[in-house]
Amino acid sequence: MSAVELILASASPRRKLLLEQIGLSFRVVPSHLHEPPYEGHKPAQYAENLAELKASEISGLLPSALVIGADTIVVIGDEVLGKPEDAATARKMLGQLSARTHLVITAYSFQMKAAGIKQVHHVSTQVHFKKLRPDEIDYYINTDAPYDKAGAYGIQDYSSIFVDRIEGCFYNVVGLPISDLSEKLNHLLSQHSITLK
Amino acid sequence: MSAVELILASASPRRKLLLEQIGLSFRVVPSHLHEPPYEGHKPAQYAENLAELKASEISGLLPSALVIGADTIVVIGDEVLGKPEDAATARKMLGQLSARTHLVITAYSFQMKAAGIKQVHHVSTQVHFKKLRPDEIDYYINTDAPYDKAGAYGIQDYSSIFVDRIEGCFYNVVGLPISDLSEKLNHLLSQHSITLK
Repeated sequence: MSAVELILASASPRRKLLLEQIGLSFRVVPSHLHEPPYEGHKPAQYAENLAELKASEISGLLPSALVIGADTIVVIGDEVLGKPEDAATARKMLGQLSARTHLVITAYSFQMKAAGIKQVHHVSTQVHFKKLRPDEIDYYINTDAPYDKAGAYGIQDYSSIFVDRIEGCFYNVVGLPISDLSEKLNHLLSQHSITLK
Repeated sequence: MSAVELILASASPRRKLLLEQIGLSFRVVPSHLHEPPYEGHKPAQYAENLAELKASEISGLLPSALVIGADTIVVIGDEVLGKPEDAATARKMLGQLSARTHLVITAYSFQMKAAGIKQVHHVSTQVHFKKLRPDEIDYYINTDAPYDKAGAYGIQDYSSIFVDRIEGCFYNVVGLPISDLSEKLNHLLSQHSITLK
């Protein structure tokens, strides 16, 4: 068995915490992919493409490492919500999510160029928001938390009070479906007789 | 409007983090209630009784404060799982939860003796565990995490990989249903013309 290094190709502090939570040793080497706009693909396909592109970028630099790339999107109706660029967009997005159910899709890709490994998976979670009050939206936007988050909220911060129920994997909404990822990772490692450094 | 102090009558570090997450200012004054054993009440009723007893104990000491007491239980079939006292019990509990759906109920009580306030509420969440491997159970028990947790697991630690899906409020499983609690708290405050210090 050869021991390989695990790389997280994401700058998200939340994804880093999640991999630490499940006891993995890894190094962060963020992808700098400029995300292409969503243009009428199937949303899950779009997220998978982005996860693959991010992992590919870093796998090209570190071909002997096992790289994880990931992308999380928020889907409401037939719209995909990205990260809001300003307070007005954040306010509009939170208004769209209020009192409705939306879908959070996280896609993740495992890639190891030297071993010809290239996989992509995705997990979907349904999230229901209570009816938001304008003062709650204002308070939240003033925390500056919405700006680096798809759909303008983070289920692990103040906006957790917006979410009255979910159906599916919670951590998928945070940024990685760690139960599913851990299963798939174990399978991959045993299949290829790889151990992690 | 009079400004009152908010008190959390629980020593749980997880509950403290949750109230901080939603921006509340409060002080922790843990109840030292010796929890009576579960004896065939309805599980939700049992959790509500415990939450009320804990809040009452501290409300008696601080009658002008608004006290939150809480209790979280794990229900599988018609059994209520408490905190495991040793590795063998933890192993047995995790084995019972493996590949099945169980219910987590958190009850919480607001009490303020000086104002005659005494409320109790509960929220239920369905949690599904994947099939656990013996090595995962052993690893988790060796972290010592199971011992202070009902049902021998904490959804926010390594055992998060055991949970492949939930239905309901995630934070209810952690220890407080913060979306529901925040709604009820706002309602209580406006109804009694109270503000928090």
